[in-house]
Amino acid sequence: MKLKMLYSFLNTDLQLIEKELEAAIQAESPVLREASLHLLQSGGKRIRPVFVLLAAQFGNYDIHVVKNAAVTLELIHTASLVHDDVVDDSDLRRGSATIKSKWDNRVAMYTGDYMFARALEVMARIEDPLAHKILARTMVELCLGEIEQIKDKFDFDQTWRTYFRRIKRKTALLIASSCQLGALTAGTSADIHQRLFRFGYYVGMSYQITDDILDFTASEKELGKPAGSDLRQGNITLPVLIAMQDPKLKALVKTVHEQISFDEMTVIIEAIKATGSIEKAGEVSKMYLKKAFAQLEGLPASRSKKTLAEIAKNIGNRKF
Amino acid sequence: MKLKMLYSFLNTDLQLIEKELEAAIQAESPVLREASLHLLQSGGKRIRPVFVLLAAQFGNYDIHVVKNAAVTLELIHTASLVHDDVVDDSDLRRGSATIKSKWDNRVAMYTGDYMFARALEVMARIEDPLAHKILARTMVELCLGEIEQIKDKFDFDQTWRTYFRRIKRKTALLIASSCQLGALTAGTSADIHQRLFRFGYYVGMSYQITDDILDFTASEKELGKPAGSDLRQGNITLPVLIAMQDPKLKALVKTVHEQISFDEMTVIIEAIKATGSIEKAGEVSKMYLKKAFAQLEGLPASRSKKTLAEIAKNIGNRKF
Repeated sequence: MKLKMLYSFLNTDLQLIEKELEAAIQAESPVLREASLHLLQSGGKRIRPVFVLLAAQFGNYDIHVVKNAAVTLELIHTASLVHDDVVDDSDLRRGSATIKSKWDNRVAMYTGDYMFARALEVMARIEDPLAHKILARTMVELCLGEIEQIKDKFDFDQTWRTYFRRIKRKTALLIASSCQLGALTAGTSADIHQRLFRFGYYVGMSYQITDDILDFTASEKELGKPAGSDLRQGNITLPVLIAMQDPKLKALVKTVHEQISFDEMTVIIEAIKATGSIEKAGEVSKMYLKKAFAQLEGLPASRSKKTLAEIAKNIGNRKF
Repeated sequence: MKLKMLYSFLNTDLQLIEKELEAAIQAESPVLREASLHLLQSGGKRIRPVFVLLAAQFGNYDIHVVKNAAVTLELIHTASLVHDDVVDDSDLRRGSATIKSKWDNRVAMYTGDYMFARALEVMARIEDPLAHKILARTMVELCLGEIEQIKDKFDFDQTWRTYFRRIKRKTALLIASSCQLGALTAGTSADIHQRLFRFGYYVGMSYQITDDILDFTASEKELGKPAGSDLRQGNITLPVLIAMQDPKLKALVKTVHEQISFDEMTVIIEAIKATGSIEKAGEVSKMYLKKAFAQLEGLPASRSKKTLAEIAKNIGNRKF
């Protein structure tokens, strides 16, 4: 079943959030308006708002209250994607980063800043101080994750712990906070919003591990980029860490650099796959999913609970 | 009299703020810790915290409450300076921007993001929703100012209005918000904190215009960069706009480009000065100062009021 079908009953409210997102980034500046809107529209599934709305249904669901959390989180997510796209030296070195793209870089940075700032404006409508603390904390962790990702590039000796902490910061906490803030702004008890935080955290971990697996297993058409792109860019993910337990394979993986040829890369990808590391990483992802389901068990039965479980399963098992 | 001497009675509280600033940016990551600390320490006069503290003295002054506003504003200011320093194409074109500096660029961006996020954490300690609205608004305007500055570069046909709006966004509003938030967090009446907002706004406008004048009149040693650097980088400031009222001079100014030689630039700077535009810009700066003093008049007599007036005078009349 397609992901979107699972929460079609939220469509009216998601459309409202779409309008609020567009309203939030309105700017006189045409460059900024177009850049922000383009970014927002290429944003995709709105999975964070979906989590906010579903979690809010465990409390006093009022779309005009919870929408603020949904819009804030989606803007923060989009802003972080923009900053993620600001090219680093690897792109420069390829020689294709012209002065034009460099100028775009600076504009991209400020467009991201602008979206962060707009997120704060929407956030200021939320009155609960705890919500502000959670959001600020999430943003700090997100930045730490981004900086770690730069630092950890091509570090073939990094530990699994480093990897897990990085994906927690870069991905899982934002999903965890989406769940928690949805519940919190709908006035649930601490037990419920903390439980939903943990649920979101585990789902986020599983989501990112699956993403890192798909970078090896999905086709170039499905990914929109060649398989193994993460590794080529120096991002060491779980399948690689598992494969590198074999010293011979580690020596092979360490030959990866950004200018590696397509053929050489294909050999390395196949060697990684042959270790069974993809399957093992899949087991870790499933383990996180199980933990997510366990958190749901403590929640009262509802359509929302059922949907959260279905989304989690869909996210963890997706093929691309 | 030196600026710092004017508010030496705040020294104990400013030292506390210094410690809080350092504590706020603590990070496990050594790169991040060093980068943030370096930036903070090169930050200078802490004029925004000074405004926060002085404004707070019109209410129930409690350093342990108002410090949060002071730290938040200084962190936002520092973060915006970091992003300001992310090189644009002009720096690249000069050929000196190596891969190393490009990598630094990306780290600089995330260090700025990190400081913004830490600012939010401190801000979350402030309970007044109005304070959050003001801070969010200030950050949105700051971003708009940054983006306008990029867009308006080398636009010799921009209006004075464009210039005034840009310096309002880039400089004046942050000082205005510092004054307002100091008062607000100390629980003053709306009349007082709004009056202090206007005071800060006018001081900020005067401050920036003076800054733009000094770029022409101060020595290279005082500025730490050659005179006329703003214009060379395409930033059209008030002295230039006034000078360009003369069509002949406008034609000359339009020949400025980033690779212009030192000698050619000297000719243009002298031509601009010869129009009397520096003095006229100085009058505009003084006019803003007058407006600032007028706002102070409505406030009860106090040491704080006297100091604000002295700082304003000092800032508007400074020689470098």
